[in-house]
Amino acid sequence: MTTRPPAEIGMPLDEVDTPALIIDLDAFERNLARLPARIAGSAVRLRPHAKTHKCPVIALQQVARGAVGVCVQKVGEAEAMVYGGVRDVLVTNEIVGQQKLRRLAALAHIARIGVCADDAGQVGALEAAAAEARVTIPVYVEVNMGGNRCGVEPGEPALNLAGQIADAPHLSFAGLQAYHGSAQHLRGWDERRAAIAQAADKAGSTRDLLARYGIACPVVTGAGTGSFEFETGSGVYTELQCGSYIFMDADYGRNLDHDGAPTKTFEPSLFVWATVMSRPAQERAIVDAGLKALAFDSGPPLVWDEPAASYERASDEHGRLALSAPTNRLYIGDKIRLVPGHCDPTVNLYDWYVGIRNNRVEAIWPITARGAVY
Amino acid sequence: MTTRPPAEIGMPLDEVDTPALIIDLDAFERNLARLPARIAGSAVRLRPHAKTHKCPVIALQQVARGAVGVCVQKVGEAEAMVYGGVRDVLVTNEIVGQQKLRRLAALAHIARIGVCADDAGQVGALEAAAAEARVTIPVYVEVNMGGNRCGVEPGEPALNLAGQIADAPHLSFAGLQAYHGSAQHLRGWDERRAAIAQAADKAGSTRDLLARYGIACPVVTGAGTGSFEFETGSGVYTELQCGSYIFMDADYGRNLDHDGAPTKTFEPSLFVWATVMSRPAQERAIVDAGLKALAFDSGPPLVWDEPAASYERASDEHGRLALSAPTNRLYIGDKIRLVPGHCDPTVNLYDWYVGIRNNRVEAIWPITARGAVY
Repeated sequence: MTTRPPAEIGMPLDEVDTPALIIDLDAFERNLARLPARIAGSAVRLRPHAKTHKCPVIALQQVARGAVGVCVQKVGEAEAMVYGGVRDVLVTNEIVGQQKLRRLAALAHIARIGVCADDAGQVGALEAAAAEARVTIPVYVEVNMGGNRCGVEPGEPALNLAGQIADAPHLSFAGLQAYHGSAQHLRGWDERRAAIAQAADKAGSTRDLLARYGIACPVVTGAGTGSFEFETGSGVYTELQCGSYIFMDADYGRNLDHDGAPTKTFEPSLFVWATVMSRPAQERAIVDAGLKALAFDSGPPLVWDEPAASYERASDEHGRLALSAPTNRLYIGDKIRLVPGHCDPTVNLYDWYVGIRNNRVEAIWPITARGAVY
Repeated sequence: MTTRPPAEIGMPLDEVDTPALIIDLDAFERNLARLPARIAGSAVRLRPHAKTHKCPVIALQQVARGAVGVCVQKVGEAEAMVYGGVRDVLVTNEIVGQQKLRRLAALAHIARIGVCADDAGQVGALEAAAAEARVTIPVYVEVNMGGNRCGVEPGEPALNLAGQIADAPHLSFAGLQAYHGSAQHLRGWDERRAAIAQAADKAGSTRDLLARYGIACPVVTGAGTGSFEFETGSGVYTELQCGSYIFMDADYGRNLDHDGAPTKTFEPSLFVWATVMSRPAQERAIVDAGLKALAFDSGPPLVWDEPAASYERASDEHGRLALSAPTNRLYIGDKIRLVPGHCDPTVNLYDWYVGIRNNRVEAIWPITARGAVY
């Protein structure tokens, strides 16, 4: 189940086989530094979401730049992070089923493993797994911020669940999971600001309600790449869960900043490296990256190196580029960079990152949580 | 880079961890038998597309039921098939770049490996790779059937390329790749019939033109699950490349048959097995299969086991089911089957098939070409 990497260390970029997932290391490192710089001096701490990169090598670089640990969505991702050296992992999700709960509790022997709950029955199942493994698991109450996905409603339902967690002998109540996912891609800055203001109200009033009942809420965790500045300034949130900031993608690139222009807070550093495999007509070039090399849930990729070309249509292993103007590139064998529409599910299609600096392969990092859906 | 399988042989289906890619083996075997039965007595032979299943265990079952070999799209898929015991593989695609051409030629030492071309420069590159490896490679001219993807135009351009292939010392001209991809999902039976009639005209007249110039065209290969009956009856096509027939998917299920009803030629046999991980409201259930467990390029999955539920929205690791009526199922921990919108890119997300019969795990097959994009 292993694939050979599409490159070797030291190889010129032009020789890297395609499709490959490449990282512009200079841009990546700028992104890596920008978010800590933006929140320096505030009260919030960074816990980046590793569901984006699925790679403990990157997680440890985030920790080295001040992150308290990482988030994941799946037990398999938590395993990959812990086995890759990360010591503090929050599963920002409900974990259901005895097999997964046993794996989760086993990890708690060697790392701090937090998890979310939004149901009393689940608190019982978590307690049973923690007791069996003789560990104490920090549990966060997931609160519905308006995305209408998982989560209890703010206020009393959250209070009740927090109380149950606090009463469970092998669980500790650790805080509120208050991520507002559907706010991340609201295009307008004011829209996102308003959505997060509402979320902060819900999270803050819930935290205060808990306090009135004697339940301390040490952490309110949430935020994403699209909204972090609002959570940072909210006075409610204590942790940020941004993931995509290290890579960016075409969809996040369509978000507008406070000046109404597309956001420049972070820059694209992740690309799919593709080859023109057919050039049957002047106005059409076919590349070797299609539905199995790129995620299309947030639209097609951007063609990064060639303004005359746009990615028009995908099939399993083909991408059709439409050429709106003459170009002396995009002949058979030419290689180009594509910016994925959505970075997270695109990363999940690959086993290796190929890190590029000065047009040479400097790093090949295994994506050890690729496919870790369970 | 390996993930543990989500099941063990003999385990009840209910215990299979989720998300998992499960095969209903009875339905799968019915599909496997139906296509050979449908073409029995005709002149066409079956060469199923292995890009659908990416699994030599399945390929060999197809060969055992009369297939002459399989198709693939990528060199990595060809390697997986040959290393899994398949002796005749056609790469229905252009292969560009010296690394890939060397790998392709190396495979030709141990299996029959065909490949497509649509460019004179590519014929030169194929010849060089075949000469270096001291093999002879069968090459098919890909002809544009109207999908405007790869392929030379029918008639003279195809003739010229076939002549170049025939003249190359280490290549043999093997036939025409005449797949009409964009016809597969035309919903109406008459639309598909008309599209394939045009394709057969183009392929047939090109074949006849080649014959007039003394170039024999032993094979005209094409067809898919949506159109195979038309190629079979065309008198032009000699090989069928159907892939999805073994699994079906929600998108193919929307094709209409000659009676105007949704096609019943094949039945869904491939499912994503998912768990309800949150049930925050009566009208909403959240399952653990999202953008990393299902491909969404052809729409959301169908909820197979629960008519009251529809898959409404996906995020990376969540799927939101909308419940239009009360149900006494879909509580936390309940598991359900989802029919993928598009089977091929969904399969590419998994490392294992879990084969189910009589609600027990009977087989666990490795998807060895998962991720074989290069």
